[in-house]
Amino acid sequence: MPSSSRLTGIFTPNLVAYDDRGDVHEAETRRYVEWLIERGVHGLYPNGSTGEFTRFTPEERRRITNIIADQARGRVPILAGAAEANVRETLKACEYYASLGVRAVAIVAPFYYKLGPESVYAYFAEIGRNTPIDVTLYNIPLFASPIDVPTVQKLADKFDRIVAIKDSSGDIPHMIRMIQAVRPNRPEFSFLTGWDAALMPMLLVGADGGTNATSGVVPEITRKLYELTLAHKIDEARQVQYDLVRLFDTMIYSAEFPEGFRAAVSLRGFKMGKGRQPLSEKQQTDLTLLRRTLQCLLAEHGFSDQPVGGCPVGNEVANTGEISAIVQTVVAELQKRGML
Amino acid sequence: MPSSSRLTGIFTPNLVAYDDRGDVHEAETRRYVEWLIERGVHGLYPNGSTGEFTRFTPEERRRITNIIADQARGRVPILAGAAEANVRETLKACEYYASLGVRAVAIVAPFYYKLGPESVYAYFAEIGRNTPIDVTLYNIPLFASPIDVPTVQKLADKFDRIVAIKDSSGDIPHMIRMIQAVRPNRPEFSFLTGWDAALMPMLLVGADGGTNATSGVVPEITRKLYELTLAHKIDEARQVQYDLVRLFDTMIYSAEFPEGFRAAVSLRGFKMGKGRQPLSEKQQTDLTLLRRTLQCLLAEHGFSDQPVGGCPVGNEVANTGEISAIVQTVVAELQKRGML
Amino acid sequence: MPSSSRLTGIFTPNLVAYDDRGDVHEAETRRYVEWLIERGVHGLYPNGSTGEFTRFTPEERRRITNIIADQARGRVPILAGAAEANVRETLKACEYYASLGVRAVAIVAPFYYKLGPESVYAYFAEIGRNTPIDVTLYNIPLFASPIDVPTVQKLADKFDRIVAIKDSSGDIPHMIRMIQAVRPNRPEFSFLTGWDAALMPMLLVGADGGTNATSGVVPEITRKLYELTLAHKIDEARQVQYDLVRLFDTMIYSAEFPEGFRAAVSLRGFKMGKGRQPLSEKQQTDLTLLRRTLQCLLAEHGFSDQPVGGCPVGNEVANTGEISAIVQTVVAELQKRGML
Amino acid sequence: MPSSSRLTGIFTPNLVAYDDRGDVHEAETRRYVEWLIERGVHGLYPNGSTGEFTRFTPEERRRITNIIADQARGRVPILAGAAEANVRETLKACEYYASLGVRAVAIVAPFYYKLGPESVYAYFAEIGRNTPIDVTLYNIPLFASPIDVPTVQKLADKFDRIVAIKDSSGDIPHMIRMIQAVRPNRPEFSFLTGWDAALMPMLLVGADGGTNATSGVVPEITRKLYELTLAHKIDEARQVQYDLVRLFDTMIYSAEFPEGFRAAVSLRGFKMGKGRQPLSEKQQTDLTLLRRTLQCLLAEHGFSDQPVGGCPVGNEVANTGEISAIVQTVVAELQKRGML
Repeated sequence: MPSSSRLTGIFTPNLVAYDDRGDVHEAETRRYVEWLIERGVHGLYPNGSTGEFTRFTPEERRRITNIIADQARGRVPILAGAAEANVRETLKACEYYASLGVRAVAIVAPFYYKLGPESVYAYFAEIGRNTPIDVTLYNIPLFASPIDVPTVQKLADKFDRIVAIKDSSGDIPHMIRMIQAVRPNRPEFSFLTGWDAALMPMLLVGADGGTNATSGVVPEITRKLYELTLAHKIDEARQVQYDLVRLFDTMIYSAEFPEGFRAAVSLRGFKMGKGRQPLSEKQQTDLTLLRRTLQCLLAEHGFSDQPVGGCPVGNEVANTGEISAIVQTVVAELQKRGML
Repeated sequence: MPSSSRLTGIFTPNLVAYDDRGDVHEAETRRYVEWLIERGVHGLYPNGSTGEFTRFTPEERRRITNIIADQARGRVPILAGAAEANVRETLKACEYYASLGVRAVAIVAPFYYKLGPESVYAYFAEIGRNTPIDVTLYNIPLFASPIDVPTVQKLADKFDRIVAIKDSSGDIPHMIRMIQAVRPNRPEFSFLTGWDAALMPMLLVGADGGTNATSGVVPEITRKLYELTLAHKIDEARQVQYDLVRLFDTMIYSAEFPEGFRAAVSLRGFKMGKGRQPLSEKQQTDLTLLRRTLQCLLAEHGFSDQPVGGCPVGNEVANTGEISAIVQTVVAELQKRGML
Repeated sequence: MPSSSRLTGIFTPNLVAYDDRGDVHEAETRRYVEWLIERGVHGLYPNGSTGEFTRFTPEERRRITNIIADQARGRVPILAGAAEANVRETLKACEYYASLGVRAVAIVAPFYYKLGPESVYAYFAEIGRNTPIDVTLYNIPLFASPIDVPTVQKLADKFDRIVAIKDSSGDIPHMIRMIQAVRPNRPEFSFLTGWDAALMPMLLVGADGGTNATSGVVPEITRKLYELTLAHKIDEARQVQYDLVRLFDTMIYSAEFPEGFRAAVSLRGFKMGKGRQPLSEKQQTDLTLLRRTLQCLLAEHGFSDQPVGGCPVGNEVANTGEISAIVQTVVAELQKRGML
Repeated sequence: MPSSSRLTGIFTPNLVAYDDRGDVHEAETRRYVEWLIERGVHGLYPNGSTGEFTRFTPEERRRITNIIADQARGRVPILAGAAEANVRETLKACEYYASLGVRAVAIVAPFYYKLGPESVYAYFAEIGRNTPIDVTLYNIPLFASPIDVPTVQKLADKFDRIVAIKDSSGDIPHMIRMIQAVRPNRPEFSFLTGWDAALMPMLLVGADGGTNATSGVVPEITRKLYELTLAHKIDEARQVQYDLVRLFDTMIYSAEFPEGFRAAVSLRGFKMGKGRQPLSEKQQTDLTLLRRTLQCLLAEHGFSDQPVGGCPVGNEVANTGEISAIVQTVVAELQKRGML
């Protein structure tokens, strides 16, 4: 029987700190979890894409969730990423996470192979029939086989244990179509967005919350945006959303994902260690720009002092513009060459 | 010198009626224009993608705008599509439309060849330097070379005669990035969205209006959505946006674009004639589904009676679901085969 | 009744010279046509993508074909691009080109709008029923609606006047599938490839010839490649194909298409004039690299002297590598960011 | 020090048989390996994409290679897929496979996250510096981060232990560019193609061999194609390549990859068991068409009797046409809708 409480609010996709040998740094990860809870995140989400779940062994993934659940001690709900190599292994992970007492698991559609909707349905149906814990579908078409609207609808209609979807496509009409298809039969089903740059409009068209990587960096600001939006303070919310786009773009485009987010968290006082994906020297995150942008943003919102030298007034936009220009240039370069 | 009034509201992309020989049906086109103005559209937009501009000869494009401007007699502003085979021909068209007294022209980026941002900039710069009339950039990356954020910013900064952008990408963060980049230097610059399925959230994040094909079919409903959204009546606006997505999907996915829109307009009492792109028998728009969906939608909003037999309650969604299912299936089929 | 001779060999997509006012430079275009015929091209192909057909008015397109046909005086067959704004206009162009006595027309699938196979079939079926001249289908999915294998098969089966397909996809298995589908019923149907970088393997798997832009620059070398390949001199042909890839990449990636080809033709002694698409200063083709690469390539094959300073031995590859590196970098940049 | 023998010929991507509980069926897998060696495959390739490597646990992947190496007993070289969750785990796998005495490992670029070329280089550089066994790069842009030409060139130039690339892109000019970039400095470097539908032209433009899934189904035919092509018997080779495209398309498009290949192997007498990815009933491979196509193909080439009822003469093509029609229809459907 599914738990009665609906998933709402922002679940923070949990980054993991590494020690000098590249192993999970338990103490620092616990300290980071504590900091997030103190700043008011609604929930925690280990083993997501931001949490680099594919770069851990099956044993490490279990250990990470164990550490976070133990640290949270029920103060906030936990959504644990449970995807493993195949259905059988995934179900074993569901059982383990159920034994830890987490609120629900999130399971990404099969990846590497690009599966069609029938296979995606068959995969989640087998999970829906056998899971001992509530399941959140995880749709991230950029990285994994897509979970389309009819598949979400059929799974929601048939399996009570499937209680939510986290969608990282960032596509507003797609979110509307999902809600239209599922809510009539499953009014308590929850819709979470994973695309920070559209959080405010997603909430306004009916989403229940999000799993947003920026909330692991500036939990104060994402919480503020969430509350302003729910209160329909549109003009104030819009301004915060604009600021969040600026920050999000800086972290997304300054380094290989999720290195920009890991670097930003280190700026907030945590030793995140060296990531598991080797990086070239050039790739070492340019902390200067990131640090300044982050600190100014926090200062604007009253959570920090301005950096020495002050913050730009108005032309902050230039930074966004520069980054955007790079991205746009490469896109255009490719389109010109017919490669896009 | 650019006109001082900012472009706002919904400009209806004008469909053109054909007579039995496949020529422009002037009388019916005038009657349609009159009907649109009576129902409160904010402006008219001939020679857009919905208006099949590429399927007309250069002479026909001029004639269509002439008819519409003459019929409107200044009651609503006109935005005239002015793209021709090359810069020289496009500038000649700008001069002609200026002589008709239309409010502004809209110029799509060069298409067929996929140009990079430098070429797109060079093209619009030459137009910006020489145009005798205000220009709206038209970004529709699905069909034409994309106009990226830095290009919009540079063009807005340098050319006063470039006063707006119509963006049909439907991408909310992209709209936010454009507004952030352009507004500091050009506060009166106008941002219009061409993607009906995201009209409400686009307006909420800061867009000034739209050029939305559905407004040519249900001008009463798009106007209602526009006004509810601007009044921040979020819950009511959301419901109208949901209905609009349902209608939009039906028209978009029932036939080759823009045939679904042409068929829908015929349901509202106009003889649109046979389109210029030959269609197979199978492709003849399935008017049954479209008629019913459209009539029920109008009835729900108090603009029409219910069709004989009544309207479905609640499971209307099924229709959307079916259409969506077809789309999703083909997408998935392709992704499975690595073709997407 | 279709002409009995099968289309084979390499049809050169004709570039057009411009005069100082940006109009067609008739005398120089005639001189260029003469030069091509002297160097043994099998046919000429005005109004193709290389010939920038979309940047001319309908009247200019007719004039260009007229000039070329008049200059050729039947010495080589002419394939004339005949696509206009809609079926009616396209058929009028077919009639005009038939009156000029050209061998056949080539008609690209409708572009701007992306049409499905039923519409593409309906479009070409109407042409097939009414054309007074042999028709070559032109498939270039990069720029226009694709013509898929079953559509080619159905059109070939039903319309005798459709006698060939020019395919610019560069996809070898696709070429094999088309040949398998069409040849059993239409053994004389001709298959031409528009992708120079795969000319040799396309001919080896069964294609009849090509419409290759490089043949407008180095007709001596494409002819040599064609003949070596047909003679199954595999090792020699492979080396020429390698050289052609190097040259093709240089011209394709040094500028907005087809500016690299226009610049290369100017190196061979023709005044091509300034193109119709405005270019930024940065975009002015880097003639230094292009000139050197071209001249060395011609020297290697005995058609020219080496440039002053000599040619690189072996590390010529470096140039290709550098250009390729740029392309690959932007591709990867985008893929990293999930934009590809 | 890398082994001196260059990798050439066709390495068969090894499917794995499952028992009734879904575990690796060792006896049947051994019997299948024996059958492949008897039919003359040049090498074996466990833990490839065809071998569903992502659906096994790390322990299972090691066991599979162990079984195959033990069964082969040095009669043919083995290329073992060694990709694990991160560089450290991958290097441990390399050490294990080296201890088994396999010829080389193949390592796919990081997947799930889409990495840029610098990260892909950094990943393989760390492997190149530390591997105790020869490494084949594995480029499959459909499923994993792409390995671009400059990255292949840099890795080949710097690391002797990197001795080959397996490329599954199917792109002929890309293969030519790689060979041009790498061979001058590393003449013994090997280029293998993973795209069966272009095997003959890939070999003709300079590839050394392939890792082709069809060789696990009809090793007699892929070997024949390989030998005819190397002997430059172009006309005979072309006919075999045509037949292989027909078979390949049937297996690829009849079911979710690699189920069509698993079903085909069962037709040759092996109990492959139920795959690990759950399938819907509709998805159960349509063995009728597949069996007939396969048996007729073997009969044509003298390796089997015709099926009862005989084989179609000439119109076999129809089958290909039908399958192709489905594929093309969905592609077109999407393109029409702007989703491609």
